[in-house]
Amino acid sequence: MEIQLKQVGDYHVHLRDGEMLKLVAPTVKESGIAVAYVMPNLVPPLTAVDQVLAYKERISAVDPDTEYLMTLYLSPEITPEVIAEAAKAGIAGVKCYPAGVTTNSDHGVSSYEPFYPTFAAMEEHDMVLNLHGEVPFSHDDVTVMNAEEKFLPLLLQLHERFPKLRIVLEHCTTAAAIQTVKKCGPTVAGSITAHHLYLTVNSWGGNSLHFCKPVAKTPADRAALIEAATSGNPQFFFGSDSAPHPVVNKTKLTGAAAGVFTQPFVLQYLAEIFEDQGKLNNLSAFVSENGASFYKVGTHPSKDKMVTLKKSPVTIPEMLGSSPNGVVPFRAGETLRWSVLL
Amino acid sequence: MEIQLKQVGDYHVHLRDGEMLKLVAPTVKESGIAVAYVMPNLVPPLTAVDQVLAYKERISAVDPDTEYLMTLYLSPEITPEVIAEAAKAGIAGVKCYPAGVTTNSDHGVSSYEPFYPTFAAMEEHDMVLNLHGEVPFSHDDVTVMNAEEKFLPLLLQLHERFPKLRIVLEHCTTAAAIQTVKKCGPTVAGSITAHHLYLTVNSWGGNSLHFCKPVAKTPADRAALIEAATSGNPQFFFGSDSAPHPVVNKTKLTGAAAGVFTQPFVLQYLAEIFEDQGKLNNLSAFVSENGASFYKVGTHPSKDKMVTLKKSPVTIPEMLGSSPNGVVPFRAGETLRWSVLL
Repeated sequence: MEIQLKQVGDYHVHLRDGEMLKLVAPTVKESGIAVAYVMPNLVPPLTAVDQVLAYKERISAVDPDTEYLMTLYLSPEITPEVIAEAAKAGIAGVKCYPAGVTTNSDHGVSSYEPFYPTFAAMEEHDMVLNLHGEVPFSHDDVTVMNAEEKFLPLLLQLHERFPKLRIVLEHCTTAAAIQTVKKCGPTVAGSITAHHLYLTVNSWGGNSLHFCKPVAKTPADRAALIEAATSGNPQFFFGSDSAPHPVVNKTKLTGAAAGVFTQPFVLQYLAEIFEDQGKLNNLSAFVSENGASFYKVGTHPSKDKMVTLKKSPVTIPEMLGSSPNGVVPFRAGETLRWSVLL
Repeated sequence: MEIQLKQVGDYHVHLRDGEMLKLVAPTVKESGIAVAYVMPNLVPPLTAVDQVLAYKERISAVDPDTEYLMTLYLSPEITPEVIAEAAKAGIAGVKCYPAGVTTNSDHGVSSYEPFYPTFAAMEEHDMVLNLHGEVPFSHDDVTVMNAEEKFLPLLLQLHERFPKLRIVLEHCTTAAAIQTVKKCGPTVAGSITAHHLYLTVNSWGGNSLHFCKPVAKTPADRAALIEAATSGNPQFFFGSDSAPHPVVNKTKLTGAAAGVFTQPFVLQYLAEIFEDQGKLNNLSAFVSENGASFYKVGTHPSKDKMVTLKKSPVTIPEMLGSSPNGVVPFRAGETLRWSVLL
């Protein structure tokens, strides 16, 4: 059995920089991905157009065969003028991190109103706003379990104020998030990772490999994510949030790095879920059409690339690279049912 | 400033066996503990009276200066006849682990009714039933976050059926557990650890040192535990559940061991909480009187032991023993406000 997929997109990718960039950028192509939407949370974050363009060059130097859609990191430097400049330079979107909620988010925002002029400029220039949808952990009743749900009123508020602004609620992890995205019009979408279709709150205690932010929630939440991802609904598409961390940082006794690395095998993980749901016919919508349509991805030679998923077992390697700086992929050592033919 | 405490009890202690026993048993005395209630979850578990007595001898050989209250591990071998024998031998209680919920609970129970004759014998012989109060994770909607709350109807059911049976809901972690214990009569009590007064669900993701079972829950749950522990209410007393694991097992990428090791500094951790709540006057009830009263602890030379808590800083060491088999204590490297004078 084989499935043909055209111009597969991963609309939430972390490629890092330096040595880690060299290790992980090629895995995007190996995944069968033609279009990668690249996050700007380097250290320091990318808050200027020339920084983003220089980063794109460094990425392309490692692997020129993928189309990279680039983003800015929302910060006070991102004025309406910068938005105009970014749009002209072909930058696709702006990522908004609440302060301190995830890897390299120390420079994130703690109040959204000061950015209204920036959002208005983005709406005008048709750029996308990518939201890490969690409230900061500064209030005592905010936990890793409810931070996303507490953020949702803000999504509704932003959508109401900027109805034409395309907004993506990144890496949805709750049934409440799915419902809220559906409640908004077609200018609002939700991206969903592969690993959140597998994990729950039971998965990540004492298990750093499965620890990510936002954390995986309840079985009911996971069921809602699976339903949305496999439904074909154009408001939901794939964004892996594949986050490489050196194994030495994943095995720390305290403060282990948050992130699940799925990049080289994303289609294999997804295919098993879609197959188990009897929804393989909607896999293409989730990984190809819905994201391309939302992001208005134009023509590009690499996007005609076809990928074949074949019902043929593949074993996930124990590590990419080697310890202490290698990266352990999700479901390392397990044998999956589908292979990717490039 | 000094506080005098008499015959301090820790009513939930893991001492393990072999080399680990030699490492941790002396820390009970160093903590200022006079009475230790010892868990039976060795590998294999202690399911016969002679096994328990032999274990007590091994413990006493390492440190004879503490009074050890011993327990059996509930299993089909624990018949009413075994209960009669155990009571005669001075065994204080029977610990009940649901199957598979925590360290060395593979032999735990999955149905309680078959044990009703055993519970009736325990009621008759005035032995204590110690419940690990979580439902097993065999149903899809059970998570580490709700497993304790889902267990509470069973506690009410057992209490209703065996109203004179003394029952302890071990290591309470939720506001719901506190409320349920209060709703029962004085034959039901709840033990509370030191670390659950500090930690929440935000503490243990990517932080194996703070990962334990039951997991720490929400800030509201923690507030309820602090309120109960510091209230002086005789239904609540201290049980550290101090669980030593070699650091090599705590730093595993997957399947890191569950348990927080607090034993050598339990009074220091507790004193800070009670002081911050303005409830130092109730510390003695929590660590001395309430447990001794519930367990009907009789006279013993070691229990007249006085311990002095002094307002004098102490720094928690980075490790007891050395890597890979050393144990990292809770709040390692931090300086606390109180010292213990033995």
